[in-house]
Amino acid sequence: MKIGILGYGNLGKGIESAIRQNPDMELSCILTRRDPKTIKPITKDVPVYSVNNIENLKDEIDVLVLCGGSATDLPSQTPEYVKYFNVIDSFDTHAKIPDHFSNVDKIAKENGHIALISCGWDPGMFSLLRLYGSAILPDGNDYTFWGKGVSQGHSDAIRRVNGVKNGKQYTIPVESALKSVRNGENPSLTTRQKHIRECFVVAEDGANLTQIENDIKTMPNYFNEYDTTVHFISEQEFNRDHTGIPHGGFVFRTGVTGFSKENKHVIEYSLKLDSNPEFTASVILAFTRAIYRLSLEGNTGCKTVFDIAPAYLSPLSGEDLRAKML
Amino acid sequence: MKIGILGYGNLGKGIESAIRQNPDMELSCILTRRDPKTIKPITKDVPVYSVNNIENLKDEIDVLVLCGGSATDLPSQTPEYVKYFNVIDSFDTHAKIPDHFSNVDKIAKENGHIALISCGWDPGMFSLLRLYGSAILPDGNDYTFWGKGVSQGHSDAIRRVNGVKNGKQYTIPVESALKSVRNGENPSLTTRQKHIRECFVVAEDGANLTQIENDIKTMPNYFNEYDTTVHFISEQEFNRDHTGIPHGGFVFRTGVTGFSKENKHVIEYSLKLDSNPEFTASVILAFTRAIYRLSLEGNTGCKTVFDIAPAYLSPLSGEDLRAKML
Repeated sequence: MKIGILGYGNLGKGIESAIRQNPDMELSCILTRRDPKTIKPITKDVPVYSVNNIENLKDEIDVLVLCGGSATDLPSQTPEYVKYFNVIDSFDTHAKIPDHFSNVDKIAKENGHIALISCGWDPGMFSLLRLYGSAILPDGNDYTFWGKGVSQGHSDAIRRVNGVKNGKQYTIPVESALKSVRNGENPSLTTRQKHIRECFVVAEDGANLTQIENDIKTMPNYFNEYDTTVHFISEQEFNRDHTGIPHGGFVFRTGVTGFSKENKHVIEYSLKLDSNPEFTASVILAFTRAIYRLSLEGNTGCKTVFDIAPAYLSPLSGEDLRAKML
Repeated sequence: MKIGILGYGNLGKGIESAIRQNPDMELSCILTRRDPKTIKPITKDVPVYSVNNIENLKDEIDVLVLCGGSATDLPSQTPEYVKYFNVIDSFDTHAKIPDHFSNVDKIAKENGHIALISCGWDPGMFSLLRLYGSAILPDGNDYTFWGKGVSQGHSDAIRRVNGVKNGKQYTIPVESALKSVRNGENPSLTTRQKHIRECFVVAEDGANLTQIENDIKTMPNYFNEYDTTVHFISEQEFNRDHTGIPHGGFVFRTGVTGFSKENKHVIEYSLKLDSNPEFTASVILAFTRAIYRLSLEGNTGCKTVFDIAPAYLSPLSGEDLRAKML
């Protein structure tokens, strides 16, 4: 299947790299809103086009992977480009998913295309595990923890503080909370009890470190509801230890069964990822395979990970899956 | 939906109990090969019938849950009863799944019914996690560990040893192997390096304990390829501590991404179950909901967990799932 990439940031590069690990896929082209000449793909000889003439590429692309951001790009891009292509996105503003879904669904159906929105690991694989867990153990509780990993939004917030030259924020689950959930204790956890926030800051020369630390720790929405630690480090240390984009997290479902609800069960799913965008890209490509197959079967409209039978994700046949993986 | 249970052992009782946790389901009847008068269901007023007149119950049952064993019951029961009903089973002889699938598929299609085979946690949820993991990280390795939990087959084997009055065997993953996999070290593990076997034995009065221990540890297929420990305990201690049927296990997918395969990722799924049959029953009921819905949409033939879009498992609507779980 021929894959197009729209947007050549971290996620777009992750898609480009992951296509090489999937022999049934090929990278057809990269699309950009920038001047195409400024994009230097790592894949040899892959064409880079402007989005302006995108409708001419209908025959070149089986599925277009939209690699823009959720805040301003995807709400308009996904409904726009599903007019011309089957599309997949990683829209992750949880509260706005229902609206995004209906916008995309309507236009996808009108144009005979298929779309899958909100793909990745959360929303995405974590959502699937929440669904499976709650369907299996209806008498139970869900817990989702994120980290240890880099929060881009919180790192941006640190860098806006007066006197900060560079900064990175790690979200870390509280170990005792994980332990309590894992033991089936069904704790009620406040925001502060679930995650801590660890910040690594390079200060400008002569900056007031006490003021920086205070500004970060008291910042509303971002830090004031958490136990936050701030470490001041040199630029050299920052560049050596804090340029990666690791992430991960945990989804638990705990519940009870039995005539007297006497038996406890704990389901735990966890991810430990060296590269958040590359793993997200890998999930997206598996679902790209699925929606391409569904489109060949005549399906149209907007889907989510909940609507995809797992067999569609794998390059193996049904026979092979039953023989080797069941 | 109206559920019938065929076979009233541990799994059948687990289904009976789990139906109470799913308000959209009701227990229609219990079917048995024994004299129906010998069965005393816990649910008040539920009828118990002989399997002999099962075809008269077509209007009473939307899905029949087959709770027999994989060795001799299910290979004949599932193809037989899919003539009259939609059915679901927990057939778990991995090597014989392809044959069982084609037997059931043919008869299900001829009779316009739907069947789902090999449901539970392994095969079942563990199979799903293997599929998702390998589709997401094609450059990687799978690891499945079982336990800590009771192996019925190994406990039976202990009880056949000369001088043994009662016995129970726990399969336990080797902690250092779990750790190595979790660290992304991609170890090659022998049978002995993956699991240990711990046995609790009540010896008959005057039995030769050295002979019992030796007979167990050298038993081919069951114990000789493992590090096995044997504890002799009193009948009282056995009845106090070893009557439960706990189980669980771990599925890992580890893999690499990136243009130089420089980034490692670890996906881990684990179960910690107080009651193996009750958890298995809970998984089966979620998939029972799914195949009932699929049958209402006109689907027929044999399915596995791989063929079921997750949304079908949940009592929530698509809108609710997208708003609350995605």
